[in-house]
This record gives sequence, C-alpha cells and structure tokens, in this order.
Amino acid sequence: MGTSLLVTGSIGIDSVTTPHGVSENCLGGSSVYFSMAASFFTPVRLIGVIGPDCPFDLAQVFAGRDVDLAGLEVRQNSKTFRWKGIYSTDMDQRTTDLLELNVLAEAPPVVPPQFKDSTFVFLANTSPILQLELLSQIDAPHFIAADTMDCWIEGNLNDLQKLLERIHCLVINEDEARQLADERNLITAAEKILTMGPGILVIKKGESGSLTCCVDGQKFLLPAYPATEVKDPTGAGDSFAGALMGYLSSLDAADKSSFEALKTAVAYGTVVASFAVGDFSLKGLTSITKNDINDRFETLRQITQF
Amino acid sequence: MGTSLLVTGSIGIDSVTTPHGVSENCLGGSSVYFSMAASFFTPVRLIGVIGPDCPFDLAQVFAGRDVDLAGLEVRQNSKTFRWKGIYSTDMDQRTTDLLELNVLAEAPPVVPPQFKDSTFVFLANTSPILQLELLSQIDAPHFIAADTMDCWIEGNLNDLQKLLERIHCLVINEDEARQLADERNLITAAEKILTMGPGILVIKKGESGSLTCCVDGQKFLLPAYPATEVKDPTGAGDSFAGALMGYLSSLDAADKSSFEALKTAVAYGTVVASFAVGDFSLKGLTSITKNDINDRFETLRQITQF
Repeated sequence: MGTSLLVTGSIGIDSVTTPHGVSENCLGGSSVYFSMAASFFTPVRLIGVIGPDCPFDLAQVFAGRDVDLAGLEVRQNSKTFRWKGIYSTDMDQRTTDLLELNVLAEAPPVVPPQFKDSTFVFLANTSPILQLELLSQIDAPHFIAADTMDCWIEGNLNDLQKLLERIHCLVINEDEARQLADERNLITAAEKILTMGPGILVIKKGESGSLTCCVDGQKFLLPAYPATEVKDPTGAGDSFAGALMGYLSSLDAADKSSFEALKTAVAYGTVVASFAVGDFSLKGLTSITKNDINDRFETLRQITQF
Repeated sequence: MGTSLLVTGSIGIDSVTTPHGVSENCLGGSSVYFSMAASFFTPVRLIGVIGPDCPFDLAQVFAGRDVDLAGLEVRQNSKTFRWKGIYSTDMDQRTTDLLELNVLAEAPPVVPPQFKDSTFVFLANTSPILQLELLSQIDAPHFIAADTMDCWIEGNLNDLQKLLERIHCLVINEDEARQLADERNLITAAEKILTMGPGILVIKKGESGSLTCCVDGQKFLLPAYPATEVKDPTGAGDSFAGALMGYLSSLDAADKSSFEALKTAVAYGTVVASFAVGDFSLKGLTSITKNDINDRFETLRQITQF
C-alpha cells in the first residue's frame, strides 16, 4: 500500500579528510545518504549488508524517520565496507587512500518478501551484475533509476548496457557521461546515452549544477545551490538522487511522470545535496528540517528565474 | 541624444588553434567582439588603436551595423596588437604562444569630442591605469562596467582598486574573482568584491554559466546555453559583456536599473556568447540575426525555469 521506494547500495565506514577537517570512521555509503535524503519526502526501504564490525546502529541513525531496515543484513564472518579519502584544496578532486570492499565483494543481499512489491527503485553504484541481480528480485517496478561509475564503464560495459536497457533513469556525473558516450560535448553525450535505454538522464555537475535530458528532447539545466558552507562533498550525489527519487515517489501516480515533476525533483535534489555537503558525514542532513529544505528550494527558484 | 554605449578595448590580429581547426591572422580583440555583440541591441561607439599593418577594414567588418568608428585611431609608426593561442582538447584551457602588445603598450587612444557624452561605458580588459585614463575623458557616464584579468590583480592592485571605486559593474571570470577576493568559495568571493566598489558583479563561469550578485544581496544564477557546436571560445566573454551592455543600454531610462532588466541582460549575454563560440573569429556572430538570438533566448528561458 502507498509509496514504496526501495534503495540498494553501500553502507560503509568512511574516513574523510577535507580542507575543513578530518572525520574518522564515520558512517557513510550510498544507500545511507540516499535513504536519509529521501526520508524527508517519502518512506524508504533500505537494502544493504554490513559485517558484525559495523559500529553504527542504523535503527538509531534513522530513528524518527520512515526508513524500513528489514533489508539490512548483518553478515557474520564478513566485514563492513571501508573507504578512506582525501579531498583536494578546491574539493573538486578526491584521492582514495584505502578501499576495502569486504562484504560488497560477496553475494548481494536478499530482498525480503515484503519489499518485492516496491514500485520505485534506486540502484546505487555497484557492479552492474549485482544491480541486475537485485532488480530481478523486485516484482514489477514502475520506475527504476541507477547510478554507475568509471570502473564499470571501463571494465563491464556489456553488463552495464544490459542494465541501461532495463532502467528508466540514469543519474551519473559529467565525467562518467562523457566516458560512457565517448564524447566530450555534454549535450551530444547526453543524446547518445539516451539511445542506450533510459528515457531520462540526469547529469550531476557538482558546483556547476545539473543537466537533465529526456528522450523526447526536453531539457532542464539547473545551477547548484550557492552554498557558502561546504565542508565535505562525500555523499552529495547520493543525497541528490535520494531527494529526487523521494520527491517523485511521494507524488500521486498521475503527476509522477510529468516533466514538471521531474524538474521539481531535480531542484529538491540540488537543495538537499547543498545541505549534505555543509558538514561531515550525515550531519549536514540530520541537522535540518523539511522547512529548511523548502526555504532553500524557494531561494533556488527565485535566483534562477528570469 | 538617444543611446550612447561606448566601448574601449583591444583590436587585434589573432591566430587561434582549437581541436576544430586553425584560424590564422583573423580579426580579434575585446572591443571588436564586444561591439559586434552589442550592435544587435543598440548603437555602439568604438574606441581603439591599430597600426598601419592591420589588414582589416573595420568599416567593412561592421558594415550594416550601427557601430561608430570615429574613435578608431590608425597610429603611424606603430603596429597592431597580435595574439596567438592554442586551446586544449577540452577547450577549457588555453596557452598563449605569442603576445605582441605593440600599440597597446603605448599611450591610450583619445576619446573624440562627440563621444564624450556617452552614458554607458564598457572598459574592456587592459591596464587599470589606461582604463582610468580613458574614463576621465568621458563627461558624465551613468553606468560604467569593466573587465580585468590576473596580471592586473597580481601586479597593479592599487590602480585596480581605484578603478573598482569608480565603476558600477565588474564583469570577470571565476578564477579572476577568486584571485581578486583571495577566497575559494565563489559566493563569499563575490560578497567580498562587492565591498570594493561596484554595486554589481557578474562572474563568468564558461561552460558552467554565470553568477550575478548585487550589493543589496540579490543574486542570479544562469547556466550556459547548451550549445552542441563549440569551435572557438575566443571572444566569448567580450561577446557576453557586449550583449549584456547592449541590451541594458537599449532600455528606457526607467527600466535600465532594475534587477529584472539585469537578469534579462545576462541571459542575452549568455545566448550571444553561445553563438560567438560556434565558429572561428567573428563568424559565429556575423552569421546570425536578431531572430536567432531571440529564439535561443526563449529556449534558454524554457530549459531553466521550473
């Protein structure tokens, strides 16, 4: 009954260094940022795996939010995904110092029976084989969005192409778009990607905002929210996707598929991402209310319209 | 009587190499791009100096356009400014291979008596001493805008600060804004620059569009026009400024100073710049009509509003 947005992606222990400080062994992972962002708009069903070493109580992390953790598996004899990264002075580049896939390199989690009726699905970045395997466990999703990254475009293009034929919306960053299309001009790259399967392509451009293109030729360009406080870019893209999917999922069925709704969803994604980067780990998202989001949404509208 | 937009800047012989080709010894220079762009909106008065070696007949170049060349000086025993540059594969970086200031290193041109009543003035990039000197020759300008670049920020900050106190609007790119404010965050940088004199700051961000900030706190963010044809970025910034100033200058006095007018002016700047980069030298601007500009303006509005 009601909305059923499902996300599957990583849950990790992050150590992050930016010009504004260091955050050691904090909670991270694509599905965590996504769920936190989406929960401002709609109930969320989270699928993910951790090891018994995970020091975070996710029930506590999501307390008071409508995030269903029935799909959270604690796998014995395994270990939680770990990532350690350092951002450049400009925070537009990052170096991975340590990457321990651990449980992410094993079999994917199982979708619990009560999640199989999910209608909105977000497949956060992971191997396209795993993304396809997870997708096959959902009965009849209406709207499937996915993320991917350079290593799959390079090393697993065949499976990625199979995935692209199955999804409705691809949410990637601009370098990934250029790489996937093998084309430098972003508009031309977008047009090429839209022939590969998804009807909607959302290209995240960081500080430069986003470009949304549809297979029918409609386009939407939106600048990033002009935040003065940027402390930690980790999770910005997943927060963007979370708010986007959360907003769309919250609409009545008749409104969900309009281009107007998609534009509003992208604007909410932009605003929530601007909060996510305002502090380390999830603090930028846990310290705000829906009113804060709506205030920035109105500001964003005001400063971009002419 | 009527509108009186004056521009002073370089007129040059350019040789440009981009991934799309080579254009040897073509007409360039900030005042030339500016005048061509502005002439779609309003009459233009051009001030500039060339040597007798200049192979271009500017009267021919601007034939059919309302560009008054009474301020064009052909200085005997001197030589025209020459620039030779190569753009990177992505066209987001350029290397200067040859820079001969020639006549630009000499005394500035003289403003003819009939131009002294100009009310709108654009001081394209050159030494702030020359910009101040040229400005002192105008009787009572209502609206003064200027451009500058890294070498003056680095080497001539005192004079640049004097200039900033005299002008109403600074139009610079994002690297220059960060350098001038000594601040990485662009919003914070903008706020700092607005304490230095100009009431309006327009920051050009290339492919990422522009950010306009006013001293009263009003802001406007606009993405770049999503052009698929980008052959030569030379002159994009001057074309942007030309259309911006040309549009503002064309308005009735009562409308000129509104923020709405400024936003429309920035949008026209964005659109005209997108045509300027579509071909080598001035061809991107000379091959279009005002209707082409208005069509892209409407498209830009449509794809950015939500």
